[in-house]
Amino acid sequence: MTFFSTDGMQSCKDMKGKTYRSGVYNLNTTDGVEYQTYCDMLTDGGGWTLVASIHENNAHDNGRCTVGDKWSSEQGNNELTNHGDGNWENLKTFGNVASATSDDFKSLAYFSIDDAKDIMIWQVPNNTPLSMWRSNSYLRYRTYTQFLADLGGNLQRMYQSYYPIRQGVYNPGSDNGPSYQVTYDEGSPADTLSHFGPTTQPYLTAGYIQFRTVNTAKHINAICPGVKVDPAAVTVYQHACIGGSAFWGNYFYCGDFSGMAVDGYGAGNRGVDKTLIESTFLIFYR
Amino acid sequence: MTFFSTDGMQSCKDMKGKTYRSGVYNLNTTDGVEYQTYCDMLTDGGGWTLVASIHENNAHDNGRCTVGDKWSSEQGNNELTNHGDGNWENLKTFGNVASATSDDFKSLAYFSIDDAKDIMIWQVPNNTPLSMWRSNSYLRYRTYTQFLADLGGNLQRMYQSYYPIRQGVYNPGSDNGPSYQVTYDEGSPADTLSHFGPTTQPYLTAGYIQFRTVNTAKHINAICPGVKVDPAAVTVYQHACIGGSAFWGNYFYCGDFSGMAVDGYGAGNRGVDKTLIESTFLIFYR
Amino acid sequence: MTFFSTDGMQSCKDMKGKTYRSGVYNLNTTDGVEYQTYCDMLTDGGGWTLVASIHENNAHDNGRCTVGDKWSSEQGNNELTNHGDGNWENLKTFGNVASATSDDFKSLAYFSIDDAKDIMIWQVPNNTPLSMWRSNSYLRYRTYTQFLADLGGNLQRMYQSYYPIRQGVYNPGSDNGPSYQVTYDEGSPADTLSHFGPTTQPYLTAGYIQFRTVNTAKHINAICPGVKVDPAAVTVYQHACIGGSAFWGNYFYCGDFSGMAVDGYGAGNRGVDKTLIESTFLIFYR
Repeated sequence: MTFFSTDGMQSCKDMKGKTYRSGVYNLNTTDGVEYQTYCDMLTDGGGWTLVASIHENNAHDNGRCTVGDKWSSEQGNNELTNHGDGNWENLKTFGNVASATSDDFKSLAYFSIDDAKDIMIWQVPNNTPLSMWRSNSYLRYRTYTQFLADLGGNLQRMYQSYYPIRQGVYNPGSDNGPSYQVTYDEGSPADTLSHFGPTTQPYLTAGYIQFRTVNTAKHINAICPGVKVDPAAVTVYQHACIGGSAFWGNYFYCGDFSGMAVDGYGAGNRGVDKTLIESTFLIFYR
Repeated sequence: MTFFSTDGMQSCKDMKGKTYRSGVYNLNTTDGVEYQTYCDMLTDGGGWTLVASIHENNAHDNGRCTVGDKWSSEQGNNELTNHGDGNWENLKTFGNVASATSDDFKSLAYFSIDDAKDIMIWQVPNNTPLSMWRSNSYLRYRTYTQFLADLGGNLQRMYQSYYPIRQGVYNPGSDNGPSYQVTYDEGSPADTLSHFGPTTQPYLTAGYIQFRTVNTAKHINAICPGVKVDPAAVTVYQHACIGGSAFWGNYFYCGDFSGMAVDGYGAGNRGVDKTLIESTFLIFYR
Repeated sequence: MTFFSTDGMQSCKDMKGKTYRSGVYNLNTTDGVEYQTYCDMLTDGGGWTLVASIHENNAHDNGRCTVGDKWSSEQGNNELTNHGDGNWENLKTFGNVASATSDDFKSLAYFSIDDAKDIMIWQVPNNTPLSMWRSNSYLRYRTYTQFLADLGGNLQRMYQSYYPIRQGVYNPGSDNGPSYQVTYDEGSPADTLSHFGPTTQPYLTAGYIQFRTVNTAKHINAICPGVKVDPAAVTVYQHACIGGSAFWGNYFYCGDFSGMAVDGYGAGNRGVDKTLIESTFLIFYR
């Protein structure tokens, strides 16, 4: 697959302008650890490194915060571990690039790349093979303001230093993290909005990515993919945002996809539709 | 270890006739992901790729459908996740080739090889080191009719498209999957039968591999290694077959080895003996 | 990173005298499996291979023996699995070298190197990046009597053949495993002692590593890092030793860090301080 030397390459950005071929490449951390991940070399000139996937293995009410909920907690709905499993902020890795739509994936790239400026998200149906990610994604969007350059150069540093995931210590709404406008390569803001619950939609503005929301009970979500939320709507964040802390007074909101299935699996007024609940979010850096 | 170039090799079949040396080789998926697995180059001319191992980390009554039960469910005895964890059908991977007799293993080969025709199973005592798998296996058998060529070319496609693992939707016995006769390289049908419970044996025919059985309560097992079951004996499948769905009215049948320890660990009338309960099933393609 | 050929190298010892550069290297098992781990090439002439890390993901009372407690049990406080998950003795691997201070790590080196003579332990704050392990470790110590040469040449064989982790079958205190004196490269016996609870300290002698302790209820800990325990103090072992069996009458002692948080997280009379509870133990062979 590697048709020119990629020795020592630390991100897909190092290939920008050298190839138009997306796929799996060999990368190295600055510490010399070798790994493989996916490079998208087509979007806006290419150079996008897949760093993570967020996949819900069990969106049913009683499958939350159990094994497989690595972006929230595998420890149950537990007040003592109120920061969740810490994977947004720590150096743990899990999963495999070829399995990124069937399982949570956290690449070494997530924390070893330290000069990322923008992020891109692809929403892809679960269990889509790697070779079809791009063509099968129903939404593809990315930031363009280079916001991450000022926030540590990767998401691990951003969460650790600027927007920690800690339940119970931040002020609802007012301590929400920032939101950034995105540009679309597939789909639109209207398409994005259409997958959220009808009673949740009025509180969302599509065409953004927002970080670290703090709801009315001081529970935390890590990221709102494709939307920013009305700061005043402190009771609806968990129906539009994902990942985060482990303790939720209402057990049903604990889990990688938080309260997205609140009124039933892929149905209901507040939760998301079946397309979204059965999707994986692929997260890229550039 | 790789004493001639294996660059780009996508299965152990690519080495058939070139070497008689079994061991660990470097393979690539068609998407360019590199990985290592074991090739058996001795059986019937060689070319067998290890794609998975099924290992029970806890066959005691209260250790079922917990962490480590990846071929059934790590989510508990849960009616809502009635298809189990989905690993027979999805693109998730887990484990390591060198650890395949101490832990569940699902190689990229399981779903990336798409021209498999037959499968081979080795029954090996748990914790056997890789170099001793062949010599320590007490049963080795394989299909020879090239059945898998007509069922998608690998087990992932076979389960996904032809014999899904879904509790509650198929008819007991009559919706069982097919069985295929095997030929033995170590042991015999009689040896195979001897490890099953004495009151279960009368309902089994050894010398076969059967897929997707549906029992009286519409609970599912994925595979019956070394045997086919009497379709009428819809209450005994779970004592001879492994893997499958997550919900069992009787909690004790949920787990990678299902009801094999029903009457106690390695003992009793219905369950298997200690040799089998402390074994790993290694699954190969060719 | 690999600036001279490391092809076929089976441990960091093979580089002794050839480099002074610590870092990540490519190693191979005798079975031909390739992997990466960290080599310390500075301590006492170098040649130390990182084989494991013991990391507590949740030292709170109700987070014990759950997902992430791989050196004790992920199966709960369970009498039937009284040997724990068996990872001290089996061939399972988990984690990643670059994540060793954020997650449990068991390298192939743990059981594939079979000529280890001494062990070294570094105590490093959780989430320390690999490049800062050495400089950030507050304690570094190692055995020097080559004790492991007579106990199988690695810890897997030592536990399996000489000091199994089995709850309920050994005699409290009198069946404790051996202890070996260590020499310090960072810190001192007094520093080591200072991190343990004030009412536990009188029963410890710092400057040692002890293996397999058996407490008053015949519960097992796998290793006491930096200390040996008074054989008569059969009720305090779990406050100074880590890893081990899965069943503890008192639920709070089950977990990778056992009873180290008995009186609260990083506080109290019997348990360890916050520095220790938020540390990872890195284990090396030479």
